[in-house]
Amino acid sequence: MQSCAKSWRVVISRSIDARAPYRNISNKGGVFKKLQGLNADVSANVRCMGTSQILWSRKIERILPRHDDFSERHIGPGDKEKQEMLSTLGLESVAQLIENTVPASIRLGRSLKMDDPVCENEILDSLQKIASRNKMWRSYIGMGYYNCSVPPVIQRNLLENSGWVTQYTPYQPEVSQGRLESLLNYQTMVCDITGMAVANASLLDEGTAAAEAMQLCNRQNKRRMFYIDTRCHPQTIAVVQTRKYLSVHPSFYLSLSICISIFYLSVWLYLSFYPLCRFICLSVSLPVHVSLCICVSVYHPSIFLSVSICQSIISIFLSVCLSVSVCFSLTLSIFKENLVRMMPGRMVGVTRDAAGKEVYRLALQTREQHIRRDKATSNICTAQALLANMASMFALYHGPQGLRHIAERTHNATLILAEGLKRAGHKLQHENFFDTLKISCGVAGKDILEKAMQREINLRVYSDGLVRPVKILQWYLSTVMILHGSCTMKLNSSSELMPITWREFANIHPFVPLDQAEGYQQLFRQLERDLCEITGYDKISFQPNRQVSCLILLLRYQKRDLFSFVKSGLIVDKHKANLAAIMITYPSTNGVFEENVSEVCELIHQNGGQVYLDGANMNAQVGLCRPGDYGSDVSHLNLHKTFCIPHGGGGPGMGPIGVKQHLALFLPSHPVVNMQSSNAGSSLGTISAAPWGSSAILPISWAYIKMMGSKGLVHATEVAILNANYMAKRLETHYKILFRGSKGFVAHEFILDVRPFKKSANIEAVDVAKRLQDYGFHAPTMSWPVAGTLMIEPTESEDKAELDRFCDSLLAIRQEIADIEEGQMDSRVNPLKMAPHSLACITSTTWDRPYSREYAAFPVPFVRPETKFWPTISRIDDIYGDQHLVCTCPPMDVYESPYEERASS
Amino acid sequence: MQSCAKSWRVVISRSIDARAPYRNISNKGGVFKKLQGLNADVSANVRCMGTSQILWSRKIERILPRHDDFSERHIGPGDKEKQEMLSTLGLESVAQLIENTVPASIRLGRSLKMDDPVCENEILDSLQKIASRNKMWRSYIGMGYYNCSVPPVIQRNLLENSGWVTQYTPYQPEVSQGRLESLLNYQTMVCDITGMAVANASLLDEGTAAAEAMQLCNRQNKRRMFYIDTRCHPQTIAVVQTRKYLSVHPSFYLSLSICISIFYLSVWLYLSFYPLCRFICLSVSLPVHVSLCICVSVYHPSIFLSVSICQSIISIFLSVCLSVSVCFSLTLSIFKENLVRMMPGRMVGVTRDAAGKEVYRLALQTREQHIRRDKATSNICTAQALLANMASMFALYHGPQGLRHIAERTHNATLILAEGLKRAGHKLQHENFFDTLKISCGVAGKDILEKAMQREINLRVYSDGLVRPVKILQWYLSTVMILHGSCTMKLNSSSELMPITWREFANIHPFVPLDQAEGYQQLFRQLERDLCEITGYDKISFQPNRQVSCLILLLRYQKRDLFSFVKSGLIVDKHKANLAAIMITYPSTNGVFEENVSEVCELIHQNGGQVYLDGANMNAQVGLCRPGDYGSDVSHLNLHKTFCIPHGGGGPGMGPIGVKQHLALFLPSHPVVNMQSSNAGSSLGTISAAPWGSSAILPISWAYIKMMGSKGLVHATEVAILNANYMAKRLETHYKILFRGSKGFVAHEFILDVRPFKKSANIEAVDVAKRLQDYGFHAPTMSWPVAGTLMIEPTESEDKAELDRFCDSLLAIRQEIADIEEGQMDSRVNPLKMAPHSLACITSTTWDRPYSREYAAFPVPFVRPETKFWPTISRIDDIYGDQHLVCTCPPMDVYESPYEERASS
Repeated sequence: MQSCAKSWRVVISRSIDARAPYRNISNKGGVFKKLQGLNADVSANVRCMGTSQILWSRKIERILPRHDDFSERHIGPGDKEKQEMLSTLGLESVAQLIENTVPASIRLGRSLKMDDPVCENEILDSLQKIASRNKMWRSYIGMGYYNCSVPPVIQRNLLENSGWVTQYTPYQPEVSQGRLESLLNYQTMVCDITGMAVANASLLDEGTAAAEAMQLCNRQNKRRMFYIDTRCHPQTIAVVQTRKYLSVHPSFYLSLSICISIFYLSVWLYLSFYPLCRFICLSVSLPVHVSLCICVSVYHPSIFLSVSICQSIISIFLSVCLSVSVCFSLTLSIFKENLVRMMPGRMVGVTRDAAGKEVYRLALQTREQHIRRDKATSNICTAQALLANMASMFALYHGPQGLRHIAERTHNATLILAEGLKRAGHKLQHENFFDTLKISCGVAGKDILEKAMQREINLRVYSDGLVRPVKILQWYLSTVMILHGSCTMKLNSSSELMPITWREFANIHPFVPLDQAEGYQQLFRQLERDLCEITGYDKISFQPNRQVSCLILLLRYQKRDLFSFVKSGLIVDKHKANLAAIMITYPSTNGVFEENVSEVCELIHQNGGQVYLDGANMNAQVGLCRPGDYGSDVSHLNLHKTFCIPHGGGGPGMGPIGVKQHLALFLPSHPVVNMQSSNAGSSLGTISAAPWGSSAILPISWAYIKMMGSKGLVHATEVAILNANYMAKRLETHYKILFRGSKGFVAHEFILDVRPFKKSANIEAVDVAKRLQDYGFHAPTMSWPVAGTLMIEPTESEDKAELDRFCDSLLAIRQEIADIEEGQMDSRVNPLKMAPHSLACITSTTWDRPYSREYAAFPVPFVRPETKFWPTISRIDDIYGDQHLVCTCPPMDVYESPYEERASS
Repeated sequence: MQSCAKSWRVVISRSIDARAPYRNISNKGGVFKKLQGLNADVSANVRCMGTSQILWSRKIERILPRHDDFSERHIGPGDKEKQEMLSTLGLESVAQLIENTVPASIRLGRSLKMDDPVCENEILDSLQKIASRNKMWRSYIGMGYYNCSVPPVIQRNLLENSGWVTQYTPYQPEVSQGRLESLLNYQTMVCDITGMAVANASLLDEGTAAAEAMQLCNRQNKRRMFYIDTRCHPQTIAVVQTRKYLSVHPSFYLSLSICISIFYLSVWLYLSFYPLCRFICLSVSLPVHVSLCICVSVYHPSIFLSVSICQSIISIFLSVCLSVSVCFSLTLSIFKENLVRMMPGRMVGVTRDAAGKEVYRLALQTREQHIRRDKATSNICTAQALLANMASMFALYHGPQGLRHIAERTHNATLILAEGLKRAGHKLQHENFFDTLKISCGVAGKDILEKAMQREINLRVYSDGLVRPVKILQWYLSTVMILHGSCTMKLNSSSELMPITWREFANIHPFVPLDQAEGYQQLFRQLERDLCEITGYDKISFQPNRQVSCLILLLRYQKRDLFSFVKSGLIVDKHKANLAAIMITYPSTNGVFEENVSEVCELIHQNGGQVYLDGANMNAQVGLCRPGDYGSDVSHLNLHKTFCIPHGGGGPGMGPIGVKQHLALFLPSHPVVNMQSSNAGSSLGTISAAPWGSSAILPISWAYIKMMGSKGLVHATEVAILNANYMAKRLETHYKILFRGSKGFVAHEFILDVRPFKKSANIEAVDVAKRLQDYGFHAPTMSWPVAGTLMIEPTESEDKAELDRFCDSLLAIRQEIADIEEGQMDSRVNPLKMAPHSLACITSTTWDRPYSREYAAFPVPFVRPETKFWPTISRIDDIYGDQHLVCTCPPMDVYESPYEERASS
């Protein structure tokens, strides 16, 4: 089972001494933790940061410097703590640590050229000025993005609540039952709406979901011909085309074999939650005045694998009716049960825990790349979990009847509008519709557009006919993608997060004319400039799809098809002729700055290859070295890792691509929006549905960089490396640290080898991970990149006290293992094998363990009853769940209401 | 010990079945609870409400009505549940219930005349339009209100977090340790800054705190002459004068006896946290261009009771440097230890719990009016707890050094400005200052003002000299105030709460010219109109001080001084000559609509008296009957009770006054702001510092009323009465219901008599209250209005399932009492006497109770380990705490760090 190492902070922040007195608090922060620890038991890990004073001019700033700055709050350890950590390492300065860690040959010999850092209480004013340049017209452009209204209760308590926003993928079900239940509700809702038997819990967006669905079909039947209706949204067609996995044909008839059936079928939004018929007929499209562009899916019992990509329909339904902002698009895939084990994306399932209780967990994780790489489907992390949770809550908010009523009311309103338009002399292009009308105007289109502009209304304008033939392409590449990087859990400050719900960012349609989005354009330019300076690249594209983008880009540029992931250059020579590129994670996932990275890059270039440097570990490089300097040609950047976008439980994230100049022409373009920066002729095509991805979250990274400034960014990197080395040092006496750099230091993360304990004490990585929950910590990444180990990345944001608590816990666990090794504790019934210990278990009268309740639940002094974060269930049974796959809510009769029984008695 | 009955909802919302499936959810809401129950363990009780659809015109609304409305979400029970509850009561309709409950003679025979209800997702747009009419000038008016910047981490996680905002006064320390610790931090910070030994945890505002301090002095020495420096803020002087408790004199020398020392002493903001000297010299005042108006307090050891009202200084310091918005003013009182038992307001102290652990609680509650009315000081609820918590967190955020640095930097910046002004030819009025300058302008003041206006800057302008003689008045009324009403805990929706942090509401100085506050004026007018229609009054004043305002108003009008609180008119005749007024709580605190209320009012009027109807129970009357109709002349309204302003842990609240026309001329005025509605000649004077109180929270009530509409408001009242009667019915077989109306029904609340159990089982109200915590409920009000009983007010917002869970819990507790009565359970060691059971207690290896862990912690099926809200400590020891009074954080060495010990080992 895979778990993200770096998310151990989630629970650390709960184990703070909640009674530390006011006088004990330095200005190093901790306010958020106090807030959390004192009253609001939000299970989250955002912390305080920032300064607060009335606005001062920059001049006064120079004469009278402030007493604190943002980077001081963002970075965990203070000067005293850093000195203590350096002593432990036998070093005198941070500079000395970096010299011993990052190869001199690649070191950036200068400061980053960035603007002076902006004070935290000024950043929102600056951003407000930028935001105000976005124009808030009413958009009836549609095409998959619709204005909708988020109920304040959901906005405030979910979208603005770090307990939902900050979290990582719920890999540890014992501490994530709430989010898992919410996603299960989402899947149930989708199945109920569509009549499908199984749904996953969202993918990235409509376009990429369509591509995933096609890939799924190929996975099943190995065929390579697909048809797509040209009346699908142009960006959907473009994304599918870019993947080159498909055939595109003007016909909308579906192939007889396993295929994707996308065609215009009906215009009735079918909302029954217990559909009697096996026919799913869903209409979608765009509001008023504009056109109809439908993808509809069919399930026909005789075509037993007729896989539907209902994404379009559902995402439109969700974005119209469910509470998802227009700047995001929510997507999902629905599959028949027999394809379920091949389907991409995350899926929540029901299973049982060690106590026999029915519980939730991520199902079928064996499909993940790290378990069986060759059988992997897609990256489980590529999802829109936060938005799926919002949609799920929106469904709870209205209930099935409410959703149906909204749909009917929407349709009825459209009927009224249609009638009015007809009476006014306009002509509808179709008689059947749900909520969208395409109109042949009774007067000149120009006049209508002009009036619309005067009223600040955006419409979609068709320049030509309905059906446009699309070139047929054979696809030829089938098993590229699904890479997995490190999952840095950085601190997300409230200041960074607040702007995402500002209407000027959240309510702009992604396809509006660019002169309405000047604020966004300014933000993109500034962020691009800063990211280029940080990475050494010449150009950034914000159209995200991480690895896929980079690989297709290189394919397009190289016209070769061999990708290598090897670390040494040995096989390069052998494959010289068709070597397209090498992909390198640097510093490596082993947690080491390899000395020869420049040489490897050079070797690849000499052999005609390109270097694609995985940006997952940029958090170890910012300000110290730049991929663009030491030989990389392209990287994807994980803004949700290095640049503070929260994980959202698994999306939305942002993965822009940075390239050197020679690749700039190949960056993504868009079929609807004319992105000035991209070149339609040479572009790799369209890689995701929106031109700049989930742009509403970019202010987070923008604000982080602006507030940190050059010095702060470098220092964050240094402390990330210092923190990792300090932990490695404290743990090395009791655990083996698996890899180190040439001078004995690790990078920003390291691998803890727990494999020997399998033999000595019957203890495996999973036992250590689950036992850490009892100590109040989320488990680190398990079995990645080395099976049976734990990978630990503390980041710069944890302070020394928290690092020490984590180390203390691991050392205490090592002692527990020793007790087993020495025969003092049973090898089957011991605190590790029985971990985690839920409240139900600890509070039960029955206690037949050979260790005490306190030993189980409060193994160290800092884990205390009043502040402990408890696992809500006992250890999950993964095998049972995969064998008895249930991915929707159990039937109603399973849910007995404990109250009702009593009330009637 | 007093506890607010109505806050039992706080914990109810935790006991929801978190695993109820998606399909089980009707559109009746519950989303917030799901959010809470699933993941974000916020201990709060706000719930979902509202609709969510794209904006539709009102016309479409009529043709195609929505499927839900705000009032449906606000009100707990649905149609089916209401029918079930009515059946239980043997009634057929809600109308029949109301006929049997509210006397026909006072029933309002028509609908309230109000605008059509506004849909929840339109309300914020409407309010935004109003807000945009407020002008966002920069204000350097000062006078106790300063712009300051709230760190986003505090705004989002405290001010926008229902776990802090919704809560009631922390009367139940076992479930409120976090908020208590935060307030203790606040007290410690105040003591550290001022050098005083004790501080309370805030009062209402600067003006009223000054009045409280003077009353305290009188309480101590019985003298009636006070001096106040005329250079205090005019509104402070006005408030003190209005109370007529003081003498005002131009001299700033302090009397030799116990007195208030307020004088201009120094200009150095003394920020040391461990002051060596016994001199407190604090300067305050207003920023740039304006004047100096100082109140400074001195502590001189030889004048052993020289009580300081440092409120001014501290509130200014806090509002400049600490994170309190300009529309609020935070106040506090600091007293020397020997006055501590007489001081007004709440105070957090350290004590121990039943397990011997050091814990926090509200200290010295015997000073509260309900315990010993004659010895009572003031209403512990009159506080600014939410703002005190924000200030406390701000202090943690910066730490002592950070605060000092901010103060120094502020002063230094002022020095620079002063130098610049001098060089520009202006003249400072004083050489010593902290952050404020009063300038004699080198050019015509008019020119400067004009330029300031062009730049949208507000300044304070002095029209005359520094010292203005104030008439000396003898005070003659000393023991009026401190009444206590019901404390309705209504649901606070996110939609209502969101606007309070909008800059257009939060950042307007309360003394700006009225043409800059047109949005506010519009809001006041609309709210006044609606409140007049609801109450039957002719005029509303938003300048709040609840009971004090009304009493002074009547005093002013009547020129008589006898106030009666009796229910019958028997003594009226006897006191005919000097009867000023009667005060009635209606329906009475006994939970009954007395039939003869009109007759009583008439009798009072016949005898020359006025009727003051306590508005605390308006929640039982809205839309059914109106005080203004059945004979009342004046009421205070608790907007934080009936009109959805959250309690904020004890403020800020709003208590406007409604009056009939003949009293309108006597409503409060203001010495700085010309309130068009008030008449300076006849006005009662100034009752609190800001002309319209904490106006930034008024949008909450405005939005509630607008969204509910006439029908929704009436229905809420009906359901509040239905809920109370249903609970009384379910409980009456096992408990005695103490009072009922003539037809056997209660009003919106009722009293449960638990006194017999003292004799039969040695069980008292406090045991039942603490045991309810084990069942997951906050205790109801104890011993008010009848000692030894419990008062229960469910409100309309709880649904039937929650009412039933609460009733089930009380019935189960009754069975536990029966077990003691029958000798099956020990009368000293039983679940009631040992309640509440903390996690530490339940999880301990040691368990020597004659009942099981499960019986203690999970006594009913709906209380489950994974969702239970746990008391964090065992039962509080009140007596020990009052005997060993400690009201600041213990010294640093008490706080051992469990981590440090291990780390060094």
